[in-house]
Amino acid sequence: MSPSPLRVTVWNEFINERVLPDAGAVYPRGIHHVLREALEEQLGAGVQVHTATLDEPEHGLSQQRLDETDVLTWWGHSAHDQVQTEVVERVLDRVWQGMGLVVLHSGHLSRIFRRLMGTSCTLRWREAGERERLWVVAPSHPIAAGLSQEYFELPQVETYGEHFDIPAPEELIFISWFSGGEVFRSGCTFRRGNGKIFYFRPGHETHPIYYHPQVRRVIANGVGWAAPNPGPYRGRSLHAPDPLV
Amino acid sequence: MSPSPLRVTVWNEFINERVLPDAGAVYPRGIHHVLREALEEQLGAGVQVHTATLDEPEHGLSQQRLDETDVLTWWGHSAHDQVQTEVVERVLDRVWQGMGLVVLHSGHLSRIFRRLMGTSCTLRWREAGERERLWVVAPSHPIAAGLSQEYFELPQVETYGEHFDIPAPEELIFISWFSGGEVFRSGCTFRRGNGKIFYFRPGHETHPIYYHPQVRRVIANGVGWAAPNPGPYRGRSLHAPDPLV
Amino acid sequence: MSPSPLRVTVWNEFINERVLPDAGAVYPRGIHHVLREALEEQLGAGVQVHTATLDEPEHGLSQQRLDETDVLTWWGHSAHDQVQTEVVERVLDRVWQGMGLVVLHSGHLSRIFRRLMGTSCTLRWREAGERERLWVVAPSHPIAAGLSQEYFELPQVETYGEHFDIPAPEELIFISWFSGGEVFRSGCTFRRGNGKIFYFRPGHETHPIYYHPQVRRVIANGVGWAAPNPGPYRGRSLHAPDPLV
Amino acid sequence: MSPSPLRVTVWNEFINERVLPDAGAVYPRGIHHVLREALEEQLGAGVQVHTATLDEPEHGLSQQRLDETDVLTWWGHSAHDQVQTEVVERVLDRVWQGMGLVVLHSGHLSRIFRRLMGTSCTLRWREAGERERLWVVAPSHPIAAGLSQEYFELPQVETYGEHFDIPAPEELIFISWFSGGEVFRSGCTFRRGNGKIFYFRPGHETHPIYYHPQVRRVIANGVGWAAPNPGPYRGRSLHAPDPLV
Repeated sequence: MSPSPLRVTVWNEFINERVLPDAGAVYPRGIHHVLREALEEQLGAGVQVHTATLDEPEHGLSQQRLDETDVLTWWGHSAHDQVQTEVVERVLDRVWQGMGLVVLHSGHLSRIFRRLMGTSCTLRWREAGERERLWVVAPSHPIAAGLSQEYFELPQVETYGEHFDIPAPEELIFISWFSGGEVFRSGCTFRRGNGKIFYFRPGHETHPIYYHPQVRRVIANGVGWAAPNPGPYRGRSLHAPDPLV
Repeated sequence: MSPSPLRVTVWNEFINERVLPDAGAVYPRGIHHVLREALEEQLGAGVQVHTATLDEPEHGLSQQRLDETDVLTWWGHSAHDQVQTEVVERVLDRVWQGMGLVVLHSGHLSRIFRRLMGTSCTLRWREAGERERLWVVAPSHPIAAGLSQEYFELPQVETYGEHFDIPAPEELIFISWFSGGEVFRSGCTFRRGNGKIFYFRPGHETHPIYYHPQVRRVIANGVGWAAPNPGPYRGRSLHAPDPLV
Repeated sequence: MSPSPLRVTVWNEFINERVLPDAGAVYPRGIHHVLREALEEQLGAGVQVHTATLDEPEHGLSQQRLDETDVLTWWGHSAHDQVQTEVVERVLDRVWQGMGLVVLHSGHLSRIFRRLMGTSCTLRWREAGERERLWVVAPSHPIAAGLSQEYFELPQVETYGEHFDIPAPEELIFISWFSGGEVFRSGCTFRRGNGKIFYFRPGHETHPIYYHPQVRRVIANGVGWAAPNPGPYRGRSLHAPDPLV
Repeated sequence: MSPSPLRVTVWNEFINERVLPDAGAVYPRGIHHVLREALEEQLGAGVQVHTATLDEPEHGLSQQRLDETDVLTWWGHSAHDQVQTEVVERVLDRVWQGMGLVVLHSGHLSRIFRRLMGTSCTLRWREAGERERLWVVAPSHPIAAGLSQEYFELPQVETYGEHFDIPAPEELIFISWFSGGEVFRSGCTFRRGNGKIFYFRPGHETHPIYYHPQVRRVIANGVGWAAPNPGPYRGRSLHAPDPLV
């Protein structure tokens, strides 16, 4: 008897890949398809993946879809403000109920991440095609499982730098070094309500980051870690959020 | 040469004291006046206190008043939803810039606290006039300075209980025991942007909690701890928040 | 294909049960046997349990036994100082390499726990047969999985109280309430080197705590959580500790 | 009326400066003298500094000297194992009582720091005269007070790199970037018993690090932050440590 597969919804803004030729060349079917393949490659029968995009009705995140989602991954970049308030609140409520959330790269400015953090989530950034090294600083954490070296490297990336305006992470798993002089807290966990949240920095619309084996491994680990827990409060709506609070 | 006094604004909803005879009997001029006296008693010339209430224009929290506030204390109970969105955002922006925030008792459900936490901030509660003991669990923290015993006791209180739906506090300073069977994380610190936040549970509209010497001492300690830091980002607005994020 | 079972060694001082009639009546074959049964009941084929006791050669903790242990559970009470320095250092080195450690009840004063914490690990205690309620304060943590209520209760226990002199736990999962007026941080996690550590308060030599279903569930959850991670440093000895440092 | 000055003891191994010509050229009277000058420059009448060195009787750390010390700073490099067990235990007991401890650079391998951390405290290092940037990641922390930029830079340093085998810091204040590819958690706080501990990476026996204005400022801030708190347990010996635990 096998446990039920983890139900993951991969959300993608899906604009850059259709508008920017460089992005379309790297992700012809969209970043969400590559993330789906990555999860299926890493987790096999342990996962069942759906995708959803901004242009679908309700951005593909109907109440039913969210109710049937154990972990949601989030990639957005140029249209954060087009995500409807009602959908943000629906996602928020599901995180509070226990749904896991994995926020990738430029998703740091998404409405849902900023709402959950309570900070501006701003950072310093630069497009310079620099080299990044992700150093493991929490070697016993399940999100670092299967990495065999103290760091892994991405040859060409968009640079992110501190100060990254987030609450102090509950667990800090990766710190990035960039050849241009920046450092960044690249792998951070948080808990909000019954939900677990993992922020992971790597990603870009034109650099082929989501084909990188260690990046794929870490995202799959993060999805596994963020899976809901059958604890005392799971599935209980804490209450409907009001627009501001 | 003395350092400049800390500029504190004590905010009070100021409804219960005017509407409920029992509350008016305990706090005839309002909770804010007793809190002001407490801070002046504890901090003397080191503090300059203003008060502000819900019924004043802009709830007494004009941009200028906030710009001239180092630490804001918050007491609200029955009218959280009457605090205007514009004022909540103004306070939020000032916390991000570095203003300290001390949230008292039922302020846990205030819009500003919930917005900063990213959680529902709900808890379990009961009016039963029970006894509370606040145990110090972080004895080296400046917020516990001057307490000479491992706990202090309040003879009659409103009971609060776990689960208190907040992010894991960065520092947990007090845990309350209640005679009816509850425990509660009663003294918690958080940092958001450049601002420091202290949540402290004691308080009530009819029990005379803010006359209690240890409670007064802890609130004064919390105000001192939350004072802004002349660090690298102080005074910089991170950016104007949008209504939801 | 199933994953390999988790290899757990249950260590017990095994003195009280042979010397004190009341303890022998509750745990006739020793606490280690009841803990073994609890783990087998909860984890089934997912676990392979050995036991070890103080009076065995090398206290049953030979280098080979430890090398073949994924998670070690520790129960000691009246003979902490009879545990040989060489064995303490061997366990320490294995925790640094990645072996999980679950420390139970009076094990808070064991040499290995105090060595890993860097504090005195003292606490306040009383034998009064009082009632204890363990409140869940981290509902999304895997160690709370399967608990369906906000607290569970033990009718008669030894009272422990704050201040518990430990480093601030990385994750605080349970807070206990005692009918006599104490609170206690009863479920705490720590990481040291590559190893994960879970301290869990319940237990006693004469109260039948380890037959309680929720206690058994939490210990099994803790063992699962503390399992080693195949991360970048696993299995590497950080270096031989010297007697003091 | 002024508060009493903070009583600081600056401890230095004081071997390199007498044996290595390059070290003697930079610190002719020893690192402790430069640290004393730095503290007096930064804190003025607010501090009273003594120095102590390895070659003095009891390493200059008699019970009386420690009893009259509010904060101890520690610099050691090549002779950690020459520090007597009795003195290490005496310092440990004073930290548990409330004395602050500021550990500098290669002091990460001192017996007292390793004893307080419960880990190996090892790290990766290289002598290559590389450039270091210390990025502020906790801008509201008093240890970052007075720094006006997001980072400060040291032109030539000894490189330290992750993984730094410490417990997850309670507060992470600085992350270093090194031109050769490493990152490092350079400013970390911990609490043990009633005592506060600040680890700060910068320093070297031949690079003139302790003449750098921002480094001096941070060390002075750290000393101020680590000052004992007149809290409920101050001055109480938790108990005499045994050689191993």
